[in-house]
Amino acid sequence: MTDVLALTSELIRRRSVTPFDEGCQELIATRLQRAGFVCERLRFGEVDNVWATHGSGSPVLALLGHTDVVPSGPVEDWTSDPFQPTVRDGVLYGRGAADMKGSVAAFVIALEQFVAAHPDHAGTVALLLTSDEEGDAIDGVRRMAEVFRERQQAIDWCVTGEPSSTRKLGDLLRVGRRGTLSATLTVKGVQGHVAYPDKARNPIHQALPALAELAARRWDEGYETFPPTSLQISNFNAGTGANNVIPGEAKILFNLRYNPNWNAAQLETEIGAVLDRHGLEYDLHWHRGGEPFYTPEGRLRAVAREVLGEFAGAAPEESTAGGTSDARFIAPLGAQCIEVGPVNASIHKVNENVSVADLEALPKLYRRLIERLLLP
Amino acid sequence: MTDVLALTSELIRRRSVTPFDEGCQELIATRLQRAGFVCERLRFGEVDNVWATHGSGSPVLALLGHTDVVPSGPVEDWTSDPFQPTVRDGVLYGRGAADMKGSVAAFVIALEQFVAAHPDHAGTVALLLTSDEEGDAIDGVRRMAEVFRERQQAIDWCVTGEPSSTRKLGDLLRVGRRGTLSATLTVKGVQGHVAYPDKARNPIHQALPALAELAARRWDEGYETFPPTSLQISNFNAGTGANNVIPGEAKILFNLRYNPNWNAAQLETEIGAVLDRHGLEYDLHWHRGGEPFYTPEGRLRAVAREVLGEFAGAAPEESTAGGTSDARFIAPLGAQCIEVGPVNASIHKVNENVSVADLEALPKLYRRLIERLLLP
Repeated sequence: MTDVLALTSELIRRRSVTPFDEGCQELIATRLQRAGFVCERLRFGEVDNVWATHGSGSPVLALLGHTDVVPSGPVEDWTSDPFQPTVRDGVLYGRGAADMKGSVAAFVIALEQFVAAHPDHAGTVALLLTSDEEGDAIDGVRRMAEVFRERQQAIDWCVTGEPSSTRKLGDLLRVGRRGTLSATLTVKGVQGHVAYPDKARNPIHQALPALAELAARRWDEGYETFPPTSLQISNFNAGTGANNVIPGEAKILFNLRYNPNWNAAQLETEIGAVLDRHGLEYDLHWHRGGEPFYTPEGRLRAVAREVLGEFAGAAPEESTAGGTSDARFIAPLGAQCIEVGPVNASIHKVNENVSVADLEALPKLYRRLIERLLLP
Repeated sequence: MTDVLALTSELIRRRSVTPFDEGCQELIATRLQRAGFVCERLRFGEVDNVWATHGSGSPVLALLGHTDVVPSGPVEDWTSDPFQPTVRDGVLYGRGAADMKGSVAAFVIALEQFVAAHPDHAGTVALLLTSDEEGDAIDGVRRMAEVFRERQQAIDWCVTGEPSSTRKLGDLLRVGRRGTLSATLTVKGVQGHVAYPDKARNPIHQALPALAELAARRWDEGYETFPPTSLQISNFNAGTGANNVIPGEAKILFNLRYNPNWNAAQLETEIGAVLDRHGLEYDLHWHRGGEPFYTPEGRLRAVAREVLGEFAGAAPEESTAGGTSDARFIAPLGAQCIEVGPVNASIHKVNENVSVADLEALPKLYRRLIERLLLP
């Protein structure tokens, strides 16, 4: 069994359902210390984080990963136990195999090999791990970014091991993600009987024109390779159940996925103005899920494009689609960020898996990236 | 104790919470048979109905009432037991005292006195009682109206004993009621992730412009003394609870209270056209609660106005406001309908009551109405 398959299996065996690390990081930190890394453990609440560095000064290349996984879902739907790594027909099955214990294990192997071969490399090579990527994402990388900001810890390049590939390893290079912004809107009215509408104020009727305007709005035409900014009303709840009562309030949840044309503050101002213009009486609570990040053409993208091309046999698609990742917290520090990892077809599903061939290629891929960035 | 107070008390003692009659109608039918009435008992499901007639041919004057009552609510909130009629300070307390066992008892006394004094009166005087006015209103007067239609039983005038008075007995003559029409609308979309709106179809977004149009519409400017027709969206429910999921459907309940400018079929057609024009994919289920009724100026209104004026000392307000009553089922038979009953301030509340003076005036008032309509 190869080193990366053994380490991935060892990590899968630890039931590190978010936000619990279950010793994954200690296993890794111990290995990296043995390889010459300096490892800091930073625990916030229930969340474990580790920051392992080798070398000093700039440039700083940080590999970014998480040891937590999403819940397995119904175990009986799995062909083999989600926390018992199992290889069948050249494929490794287990929760986290693709998202992202395989990448994390590959990072570790790549780092060990790199510092063994190049103990006096330029700058700093680092690994940042959290156990809070799949959950609240509050006490993980968001918090670590604050620590870096306080310490003035620069990061030039950040490579996240999120499973970015779509059909074959290296076919997609993620160079950005949209921002996400959520809102809980309560529109206030006056309850009453439907037979006496003059004595009530229907909060559903109040809300409709404003929401129709927000839903119909074309926010922008996209940004570089980003799709247009989108607002989606995900929940609308009002009413007592009875058809003869005008309810006293309506509760609406909506979410925006936005490209770098906007930031959260601008969107909040814009939407508040629409609600005010329609004369609504309302409470509005915002939850900022993370600003968008975008890494324009530059050293990191150029190097990653070449390395992925070598492994995939063709230049990768360079994409900004998809949900959010922890790169959103690192990018605002001024880092160029990309995401490079295995095929994502099975993530968050039953029978999550990674091909053993891809898993065994990953340490080479990451090592090649590190070499191209930190060796002359 | 007067006859009407004794009979009202006897009826209150029977716990005839809708749809149960608990022997009220049998008590009345036995009395009216003794007075010379022909009484038919028609039971549909759990609902009792009685149709008592005296005389034959036209004109037909029907008194309309119900023996069922709404539940008492918390008994401990009542000063005296809701089903133990109690007189305090000249006021009779008990569930149904005002709505409408007092009126029903007064009908009986008035009818007994009228046929005793005028055994050979012109036409037909009748009493229709149900035990399903406060509940589903399906197996009561709605069903009896079908029976009348099949039998070609004409009704010229219908006097409902609903508590119509506002401050003193006879101060209000109800000459119509709005219609009510309810709808359950399911707007269908395609569920998906908010990050990929192109792969989903948001049923909330689909519904908003159509609903905004319906909510903003001015349906009419009123009709005679009716207020304008009103549509109220009472319930809007969509969403999984999660803010990152576009729901697959939205469920909306709305209700219309409409005046005689409209009938249910017209409103259904009109609203369906709006939904279609907005390109919605939807299911729509209508519940017709009853067409409006309106009794324009004519013999019944003129007589009632005079009689109420004699009792109240001033001409009554003639009104079409308020909810629905069983008159909505009799009016479509071609009957002129009015509602005349005691003060309604306490109905459906704890400590429901009627003043003993008003209760004792009611048989005289109804007898006077009957005499004015059926004697030369």
